[in-house]
Amino acid sequence: MEWVYIKDLKGYIDQEVELRGWVRRKRSSGKILFIEMRDGTGFVQVVAEKSTIGDENFESADKLRLESSFIVKGKVRKDERAPSGVEILATEIIPVQIPQEDFPIQKPDHSIEYLMEHRHLWLRAKRQFHILRIRDAVIKAIRKFYWERDFVQIDTPIFTGAIGETAGNLFEVDYFDYGKVYLAQTGQLYLEAACMALGKVFNLGPTFRAEKSKTRRHLIEFWMNEAEVAYYEHEDNVRLQEDLVYYIVQYVLNNVYDDLVAIGRDVSKLEKVQKPFPRMTYTEAVNFLQKQGFDIKWGDDFGGDEETVLAKQFDSPLFVTHYPRQAKAFYMQPDPENPQVVLCDDLLAPEGYGEIVGASQRIHDYDLMVERLKEHNLPVEKYDWYLDLRNFGSVPHSGFGLGVERTIAWIAGLEHIREAIPFARTLYRVHP
Amino acid sequence: MEWVYIKDLKGYIDQEVELRGWVRRKRSSGKILFIEMRDGTGFVQVVAEKSTIGDENFESADKLRLESSFIVKGKVRKDERAPSGVEILATEIIPVQIPQEDFPIQKPDHSIEYLMEHRHLWLRAKRQFHILRIRDAVIKAIRKFYWERDFVQIDTPIFTGAIGETAGNLFEVDYFDYGKVYLAQTGQLYLEAACMALGKVFNLGPTFRAEKSKTRRHLIEFWMNEAEVAYYEHEDNVRLQEDLVYYIVQYVLNNVYDDLVAIGRDVSKLEKVQKPFPRMTYTEAVNFLQKQGFDIKWGDDFGGDEETVLAKQFDSPLFVTHYPRQAKAFYMQPDPENPQVVLCDDLLAPEGYGEIVGASQRIHDYDLMVERLKEHNLPVEKYDWYLDLRNFGSVPHSGFGLGVERTIAWIAGLEHIREAIPFARTLYRVHP
Ligand SMILES: [Mg+2]
Ligand SMILES: [Mg+2]
Repeated sequence: MEWVYIKDLKGYIDQEVELRGWVRRKRSSGKILFIEMRDGTGFVQVVAEKSTIGDENFESADKLRLESSFIVKGKVRKDERAPSGVEILATEIIPVQIPQEDFPIQKPDHSIEYLMEHRHLWLRAKRQFHILRIRDAVIKAIRKFYWERDFVQIDTPIFTGAIGETAGNLFEVDYFDYGKVYLAQTGQLYLEAACMALGKVFNLGPTFRAEKSKTRRHLIEFWMNEAEVAYYEHEDNVRLQEDLVYYIVQYVLNNVYDDLVAIGRDVSKLEKVQKPFPRMTYTEAVNFLQKQGFDIKWGDDFGGDEETVLAKQFDSPLFVTHYPRQAKAFYMQPDPENPQVVLCDDLLAPEGYGEIVGASQRIHDYDLMVERLKEHNLPVEKYDWYLDLRNFGSVPHSGFGLGVERTIAWIAGLEHIREAIPFARTLYRVHP
Repeated sequence: MEWVYIKDLKGYIDQEVELRGWVRRKRSSGKILFIEMRDGTGFVQVVAEKSTIGDENFESADKLRLESSFIVKGKVRKDERAPSGVEILATEIIPVQIPQEDFPIQKPDHSIEYLMEHRHLWLRAKRQFHILRIRDAVIKAIRKFYWERDFVQIDTPIFTGAIGETAGNLFEVDYFDYGKVYLAQTGQLYLEAACMALGKVFNLGPTFRAEKSKTRRHLIEFWMNEAEVAYYEHEDNVRLQEDLVYYIVQYVLNNVYDDLVAIGRDVSKLEKVQKPFPRMTYTEAVNFLQKQGFDIKWGDDFGGDEETVLAKQFDSPLFVTHYPRQAKAFYMQPDPENPQVVLCDDLLAPEGYGEIVGASQRIHDYDLMVERLKEHNLPVEKYDWYLDLRNFGSVPHSGFGLGVERTIAWIAGLEHIREAIPFARTLYRVHP
């Protein structure tokens, strides 16, 4: 008898199969057992009649409880009322392991702290199952997008010297006799080097920020996708981001629609995302916010509330472009038409999810880059190799970083980003 | 005029295009310039005749030197002698940036230390270009393999408690008020939790070992792919590894054959890889080595020399199975037929590349797991959540870890693993 996964059962109507999984629910009438089985690919109802499986097997099967592991042999029967489209008429039930204690996650009202402490078991909950499949789909979409466009994946290093956007918020590590190294906050600088060798490059990996933030948008360890393209200018860069984010939305709609529905996501919100995305300059955004009564002046960065109000005007993500140079990182290219602002954009997701992408054209002129490093009080000598890129065949180039968990939180409609990653690391939690 | 990448030029025969890239080589006759251009996707010869582009443009174009960036407009002409199949007849050459100094990498005899110190520029060398494309293909192959088999990607955390295979060789990080955390050496334990929720799972991410090893097989920061499957036993696990590694070999042969040839790889060696892979038990391997004159006794682990001799017997990778339990990690399932050995395997690549995969069926019995933790003097209380997996619906399960750079080194025939990753971190190097 063939071992089959639940998701494939529709191809086995009226055939005998073996399923291996766990008990999600069970009820018994004394003569008939109904077990909702899960196997990591889906859910199906198993019907075990005492008259079919025999008294002895029925008795042992009746000992199964929540999250017991078991194997069932039986026949696949079409059942149009069932969400899976089928049910299993058991001929034999083989318990694998029956817990001695109650499964720790049973109630609808566990505290979030309790659930996070039991994350290794909470992953088995239906909602978490669907969210992890949505995460998987978002990451697949990102990769497929770059593959279709001939980008080369460049895995940027985690251990780095002090360089990056900011000197603060870095985790330190003792590196043998070398001294201190730091966990990367971005692979951008390395991607800039690589795009001069390979044209179009991207990464997708873990990133670390030692930031004492406790908001629903922050993780200490999160995944980021960065892309960098030689000879791309600001407008090419904006279009690439738009294409990527639109691609992700279409991909999840086409591939994990049922998972989105299963967790109660209002899918129509995603269906409303259209290209081209709306755009505002930073200056327009400040004017808009001032009219809405926000106490903000030109030169200030936006907080979460401002981002929410800006993005809520639209169904699609909103590009805010041309920020003041003093509000942004040192490496951003000035706008030739107004050197007070830089050729950059933040992409703000709708429905209050805020910034999911940060992007810019990079300074490619050696002297201007040195000037900006000094302006930001950064140690020029540490940027030796980064400056080399402006010395040897420098070209205009642009890139961005997309926060993977923030994107998933928006796509899946999650209240808190911690559900968007299998094992979240937050200010007070590294366990399990 | 359309901006086109070199790899696509064959679709533009006799058309006018614009190319953007860098000078890889240049020679001039005074009336005609031959520039080998690279743009990150390939290489093409640009022919610029003074009579066509004009005296002034010829003069400025003649100032281009190695690794100058430039744009060329011109006509695509079929050229069957050229590796790219085409050449460009320039109508205009636009220098973008001309270095003031000589490009640092020009000679064939730079020391490896010098090259690593200039890694940000060395990436542009033809050999490195091809190796990075091979790396990209190997990683694509790994992902496609799992996608085709409905595995769900589970990104396992980098920040972890002390648990893992060994207590030593961990990098420490201060984590806010929490105290010390450690950089993960493996995501296996987390994948074990996740496979109970999703059936078949995998990861692919950076891994850290604070090991003072200076061999050509060791990196401090390397990428690893791990997979874990609920209800898989030893034999299922071996077949999955065999299928994966065979898939990678076929994928690179079908997708980056030209890159392999370009770096001088003897591709026939890869073409000889066949399924099923040869197998030996550990005990057979020890007997074989003793006959070859090795001073090894039953119970010893193999070193690099032993692995080389074992694997050199075969064209395909070699599975060595059933190691003594004391030579392996605490979580490996004993062989029911001989509890002195465990249900595990190492996969040894041919041609002296040694171990690329380590694998085992995991202990699923709670009491046996506790016994083994104590035997290994590991703190049982730290494994609370890991033990929970044996308490709540435990099932037989198996998995493995594949070293990405070791696999690339073998596939590409590299002498040293440091060329298999964009920015290698070794005992004395975290720069650039
Ligand atoms: Mg912002
Ligand atoms: Mg070994």
